[in-house]
Parts: sequence; structure tokens; C-alpha cells
Amino acid sequence: MSMNTAPSSHATPTYSPGHPCPVEDVPQWDIETDVAVIGFGAAGSCAAIEARAAGADVHVFEVAAAPGGSASWSGGEVYVGGSGGTRVQKAHGFEDSTEDLYTYLMMAGGPGADAERVRVYAEGAAAHFDWLEAQGVPFKGTYLPGKWIEPTTDDTLLWSGSEAAWPFSAKAKPAPRGHTAQFKGWGGGKILMEKLCARAEALGAVVHCSSRALCLIVDRARAVVGVVVRIEGETRYVRTRKGVILCAGGFIVNREMVERFAPAALACSEVVSGGNDDGSGIRMGMSVGGATIHMDQFFATIPFFPPESLVKGIFVNKRGERFINEDAYHGRVGHYVLRQPEGKAWLLVDNEIFGRPVIQPDIEVAAVGETWEEVERELDLPAGSLVRTVTEFNRHAAEGQDPLFHKASNWLRPLTTAPFAALSYCVGDLKAHAFTMGGLHTRPSGEVLDADGQPIAGLFAAGRSACGLPRWGEGYSSGMSLGDSTFFGRQAGLAVATRQDT
Amino acid sequence: MSMNTAPSSHATPTYSPGHPCPVEDVPQWDIETDVAVIGFGAAGSCAAIEARAAGADVHVFEVAAAPGGSASWSGGEVYVGGSGGTRVQKAHGFEDSTEDLYTYLMMAGGPGADAERVRVYAEGAAAHFDWLEAQGVPFKGTYLPGKWIEPTTDDTLLWSGSEAAWPFSAKAKPAPRGHTAQFKGWGGGKILMEKLCARAEALGAVVHCSSRALCLIVDRARAVVGVVVRIEGETRYVRTRKGVILCAGGFIVNREMVERFAPAALACSEVVSGGNDDGSGIRMGMSVGGATIHMDQFFATIPFFPPESLVKGIFVNKRGERFINEDAYHGRVGHYVLRQPEGKAWLLVDNEIFGRPVIQPDIEVAAVGETWEEVERELDLPAGSLVRTVTEFNRHAAEGQDPLFHKASNWLRPLTTAPFAALSYCVGDLKAHAFTMGGLHTRPSGEVLDADGQPIAGLFAAGRSACGLPRWGEGYSSGMSLGDSTFFGRQAGLAVATRQDT
Repeated sequence: MSMNTAPSSHATPTYSPGHPCPVEDVPQWDIETDVAVIGFGAAGSCAAIEARAAGADVHVFEVAAAPGGSASWSGGEVYVGGSGGTRVQKAHGFEDSTEDLYTYLMMAGGPGADAERVRVYAEGAAAHFDWLEAQGVPFKGTYLPGKWIEPTTDDTLLWSGSEAAWPFSAKAKPAPRGHTAQFKGWGGGKILMEKLCARAEALGAVVHCSSRALCLIVDRARAVVGVVVRIEGETRYVRTRKGVILCAGGFIVNREMVERFAPAALACSEVVSGGNDDGSGIRMGMSVGGATIHMDQFFATIPFFPPESLVKGIFVNKRGERFINEDAYHGRVGHYVLRQPEGKAWLLVDNEIFGRPVIQPDIEVAAVGETWEEVERELDLPAGSLVRTVTEFNRHAAEGQDPLFHKASNWLRPLTTAPFAALSYCVGDLKAHAFTMGGLHTRPSGEVLDADGQPIAGLFAAGRSACGLPRWGEGYSSGMSLGDSTFFGRQAGLAVATRQDT
Repeated sequence: MSMNTAPSSHATPTYSPGHPCPVEDVPQWDIETDVAVIGFGAAGSCAAIEARAAGADVHVFEVAAAPGGSASWSGGEVYVGGSGGTRVQKAHGFEDSTEDLYTYLMMAGGPGADAERVRVYAEGAAAHFDWLEAQGVPFKGTYLPGKWIEPTTDDTLLWSGSEAAWPFSAKAKPAPRGHTAQFKGWGGGKILMEKLCARAEALGAVVHCSSRALCLIVDRARAVVGVVVRIEGETRYVRTRKGVILCAGGFIVNREMVERFAPAALACSEVVSGGNDDGSGIRMGMSVGGATIHMDQFFATIPFFPPESLVKGIFVNKRGERFINEDAYHGRVGHYVLRQPEGKAWLLVDNEIFGRPVIQPDIEVAAVGETWEEVERELDLPAGSLVRTVTEFNRHAAEGQDPLFHKASNWLRPLTTAPFAALSYCVGDLKAHAFTMGGLHTRPSGEVLDADGQPIAGLFAAGRSACGLPRWGEGYSSGMSLGDSTFFGRQAGLAVATRQDT
């Protein structure tokens, strides 16, 4: 491995991620390494750890000035279980079979669920949790009951998805699977990423921050043999003997890409990102013939709770009809809210369950009334529609039943304590938070596949640059993206390190 | 232009659409031409006509033994209007402004509608109809009232979409815009394609049938400079001075691609295709860095009528609730049917409107009763749910109103004539027909764009190999695919012919 720090002597061409650089046009190799990892977030750090552990030279290029990627701004929750349960699940009496985890993840993947990927994950997830602890990520080991968007305590285990909600609960035995790094307040991702990035560096990965990958370098047969990187303003040519791993995140902050690939996500005003999910990793993969899948899919949440009492409310649309069991994961509820006719939806609450939503406390109260008739009139809904919906709901709720939407009985309570109110989750009033789920088509090993499903030599991807476990907006659960990124980042690191030298 | 008919003397490598051939590896040029058109269907024929008319040498490569593509198996309907009306619209008293067509097409395009493309089309569609006639396509000029899936008379003008249905009718003044080639029986596409293909050949396009495009040929800068084609078993290297136009259709017959890119379409058992929509055109575009968009979107129809009296029925789901105005385009209704919980939906009819569905006469009758209570019980719906839905519907229908779903008054009639029945449109019983809408990202000129939105030199696409006007399953109208393919095939033919020689 050699590193030439002298600036290139020739005029540098303009590079862009969508267009590869032919190896014949590389003026000199500034860095030579076995593996180049693009992005030092959840996927990149784990890829670097495994590649180094397997003996490969690793250089990591991170566009931000500091390590951690979008994961370091996240809640730090990892979705794991199966194999009878992680040590934390078991300690709190939750048994979690691999088959139940598999079934849940297949449902969560929607029509495009990848059975091979889900199988690998379901079988390895509990061991992956042990591995994360072994890298130094702290988990307190405690259980936090209730329903949260993200814990602000430093507890570990929580219900983070739709496990206990219909239709998931009817097919897979529910268990809490969100495992959060020990951290008080919002943002356990910070400690998770500090530990993983430190581990990669301790193992000898050479990390370049403020380093933007400009484009891939390909040979005539389209094999990826390197990457052009701008390091602190200088263009550098990096030769990779084994491969490039794209771990550069999704594309939610690239508005032009969102318009083109996931236009429905434009309904979400807030992005879930550390700021560098500009799609450059995905675009580099596409530039050499990598196929993208499920690019239209995105996470979209409407944090209508906490307080969790609001989950006992019911959502209605402009027809005065319910449309979802409100105890499903908030991102699933969010997708249903966003697709209602004319973008209109309201959460109906009574005085007993009402509390200001913690995350969007200034939510518009669209109607208040001493009776549901008044609320119906104020919302200008079809005569009788809302009253009928609430009456039916209340009648069944009093019996602990929800025959139409199958909300679980612990969230069922008649809405009978006046005054009544309708909180507006209409487009314009609601704040939805989004990140993208589509990305490069890969094998579980991280190998990037072309349009024919054939691997592109020397190219790997993981995290949101790839399309992983999260690939269906309606099926997402908190911790699934970090679980996927860290787990399949590892697979990619292993796969590239054990690849024959080119 | 030269053509070498001798077989290549070297061992032919294995080519696949997902991997381009470097120009350095081309052993010899067997054909040299300005333009190669891949696929001789609706888009390819029109591209060839315009490219020839502009003076370019044109070779067309069609994988089937005969010309016409999937379009020749279609109904032969072209969706046109605007500019005050086509000659046929005007003759029958339908005024159709460009703005109304524009608004309708923007709504039909869904969240990803391409305003630039829609604008070009809305302004040019009426003149495009004249152009089709000028190419020799016969249109009788008559108007066929009523609601049809496809006319079996030889009439021209019909209502072929959701124009008169909510929400479209509330935003854009409705007009019939389906213009069908003159042909008695099913399948006016045959005459349409005979005329267009004959015209291309008359203008001097050299047409090779039984010729499969294997992969694109690229230079080091990734410009497309030719295509490898297997003509009657022999591998031929085609040099293109101006460009390659991919008009090779969509990917509905490629099950592996459907699983990967549009998995929800697997719910449709029937394909709308001439048999060669194998995605090879799209894959060739991807191989050189072409971006794909809206690959998950597909046309899905459930031909629950004719007879059109069935449109007066109401669809309900497992909650006993309606979910769509049944007078919307059958493909829009189809998408709503397919997404109902647990794949369950039924069409409720009374004795007055019932008639065997012409296209699926063996449809399962799931329940019959003298009262709606009996039907509800037989379907095992929540107690009271279906009766309430029908009662409400009947009450409003008697007044010509549908406050919840906005079905137009001419389709509203109380369902009160016993016996009553529920026809099963549950997954397993229904037969849905599908084709794919996603494809290469192009400019209206047909230029294929890479991941950064930059054109790939020498590469164009049109028809279902591109993502055109049809890009949202819920918004499709009959004739939109042929309208798009013929219109934008022409644009691509013009654009490539006027491109500077490489």
C-alpha cells in the first residue's frame, strides 16, 4: 500500500457519481488498498471491522468531518431477536423463536420481501446482538414496557414495531425486539456509532473524513477496481485490490432524486438523516450497471404519540371512516394517513385520553365539541358518518373488541368522556418524517447485482445504499434499518475480504 | 453501410443485456447505420418512420418472427385530445381543451407525473392523431357511447378512462379521448401496427425480424456506439453513427424481473403482452448506467364489466365497506380491489343489474340471498356491516347522490331488487391482467438519463422500455400506453436523426 500526498499535476476532469472513470484514464494511484469503504456510518463501520478482522487492508472515506453517518443521529435501536431470544429478551421472560422473527420480517418486507436475506438475518440476529456488545456497544439490559417512538431513558429492550398489532400478531408470536444502546435522552445512535467507529479504527482501518467519493473506477470488463475520492479538496485515485463497499446511505436529502424515484415521499416535510443521504452511493452503483429496487419505498412516520394514551384514539378520513388499527407501528399508521382521500385525516380523542402530542405539540385541533355530532359538523363530514363510526367503535370497544380493524384490546376504550376533539393529521398540518428504503439490488453478501441479476465484480453495498430488510414503508419497525445496516455491513466486509485478489 | 453475412470466424462470447460489450472487443462491424431501433412495435415503428423521414439510415431489429410487438395484440386505442378536440371529438360535439387534457394527464401520472412530458403531449396529441391517419391508420370517425373495456365494433371514439369519474371529473372537464383503429372484433391493434410497420418499411427502414438484441456496444466514455444482435442464429455487430433507440417493451413476461422490481404485480395471473416483454430493453439501458424509475408500477385490471349494468353494483371489502367509486376506470378499480385487507372484495349486485361478466363469465358467486342480511351472513362479514353499507348507499342513490365515494349519478341506482348476490373478486377467484409501467428515465426527446440525470450519449428509449405517461397504476386509461409509445417513439426518432454524427 502506498500513499502519494502530492497533488495531481494534470487538470482534473469533472467526475460525477453517475458516470464511472475508466481505469485507462487514471493518472496515478494515490492510495492502494484491499478494500475501500464509502461512508463511515452503521454499515461502513461494521464492514470495516469485519474486513480488517479478516486481514484485509481497509480505507474508509467519509464525506462528513466526523464519523458516524446518519446512524449517529438516530435512536440507536437495533431490531434483533430469534434463536430463542437475545440475552436481554430471555432475561425479561420473552421467548423469541427464529421462525417468529422470520415470519414477522417476511411480513414486514411486503410483497418484495427477500426470503434469503430474511433467513440469514433471522438466524443470525441474536448472535449479532452479542457481537455488537463485543465491539463495545453498551446495552443496559433493562426492559421498558409501553409504547414509544424512541426511549429517552437508557433502557434496552422495547416494543419497537407492529409485533403486537394485527395482522402481524395473528401470524407471528409477538416479542419486543428493539434493543437500544445505553444512553439517556434522545439519540442513542451517538454512543452506538462512537463505539463501532472506534472499534474499526482500533482494528487498523484507515479513516479519511471530509472525503467525498466522486465516482467508481472500472476496467474494460466493467469490474470495479477503485474509486476517485476528493480528500480535503484534492482528487485522489484509490486502487482497490478486492473491492469497494458502498455504505453511503440513502437519498432522502437529495430532493431531485426524491422527486424522480420516490415522489410520494415529498408529502413528508422532515428528513431522517445526518445530512449526507444524497444518494451518491446508489448513483455510483447504478453508473456501472447496478440495478436498483423498491426506490419508491420510504419510511414515513407521523409521531402522533406519546403520550401513549393517544393510541386509544381513532383515526378517521373524510368519509368519517376509520382506516387502520391505531396500535400498529407509527410508521405504518403514517403511510395509511398519507394515502387517505384528499390528504385528510383526523385523530379523534376524548377528554380522558387527550394529551398534547410530545413531538408535535402544536398540532392543529380541527374540531372540539360536547358531542360527536358537533365534531362531525365542525369537520364538515357526511351527515351521520362520524357519529356512526364512533358509536360502532364505542359499542365494540366496551366489549374489548374491534371486529373491523382488530386493534388489540389493551388499546380499546370507548371515547365517551366529553369534551371530544379531532386533531388534524391532514396534509399541511401534519409533520411526517421520512427516509428512503430503495437502493442497490444486492445479495445478502453485499455483492451488487446488475440488471440480469449477475454480480458486478469488485462492488458491494450495505445499509441504505442497498435495498435491505427495510423495503416496504408499511412494514417498517424501529431498529430495522440499524439492524440491517450493521448486520449486512458485516456480511459485505467479510465477503470482500475473502474475495480473491484481482 | 455494409453488411457482412459471413458468420464470425472467432468463438462468440456470451452476451447478456445487463452487460455492455466494449467497442474494443468488437471483432468486426457487420452492419453500419445511423440508427438502430430495437423492437418493431408501437414505439419502434414510429421512431423508424420519423428517423427515416428525417433522412437517417435506419435498421430495426425485432425479436419476433413478425412485426408489431405487443401493440398488435392490443385493442388499438390511442389516447388523444386537447387543442380544442381531434377531428373526431369535434365531429361529435366534444370540445377538449389542451389544459383539460394536461390536467387529466397530470392527475393520471400520480405523484411522479412528469410535467414537461405531459405538456409536450397535451399540446401535440391532437396533431398526433392526424399524423397517425396520415400514416395510413384507418379511423372510422364514429362515436360509441357507453362504458367499454375495449370496443368490438369498428367505432372510433369512446370513453376509455376515468375522465367522467371522481376525482378526475372534478378537476378536468371530461371528454372521451380513446381513439380506436377501425377494426371489427377484439384487437384493433393489429390494423394499427400493420399500417405503422408498413409505413416504416415503405420509407426505407431495413427491418430484421427474428433478431434478438443481445447487448449494447459502448466506447470508453460510455457512449453507445452500437449493438450486438443475433440475427437468425448468427451474432452480428451493428455500428450506429447516431444512436440506438430501445423500443423493446416492458418486462411483464419476465417473472424474475417482476418478482424483483414489481412484486405486487404477481397478484395478476394474466399478462398483457405479445410475449416478448422480457425487459431486455430496460436491462440494456441499465447496463450502461441508465436510471430506471417507477419500476414498481403496473397496469392491473379486473374486467368486472361489461355488461355495463354491473358498474351500478358496489364493491365491498371484508369490513363490509365500500372503497372506490365503481365508475372509475376498471384499472383504477382493479388496483383498489387488489389492495383490500386479506385480498378480499366482492361486487354486490341485485337482480336488475346482474348479468354474467363477459370477460370472466365463470366468476365465483360467493353469496346469494333474498335479503342483504343473508348475503352478509353468507360472506361472514361483521354483523350489520354490509347491511349498513347497502342501506346507506341505497338511501343516497335513490336521490342520485354518493356523498362518500362520488360515483356519478348516471351509475347510481338503489340495489333493491331481490335476489341479491356477491360476486367474488377475492385473490384466488379474480383474474387480473397486468403490464409494467416502470422503465428507463428519459427526457421527452427519448434521451436515456443516467443516475445524475445526464444523458447517455447515443442512447434513446420509448414505449414501455421507458417510463412514459403511464407511470401510476391507479391513473391509467386505455389508450395511454399506445398514445405514449407512438408519440414519444416519434420524438425519439426525430431526436436521434438530428443528432450530430459521432
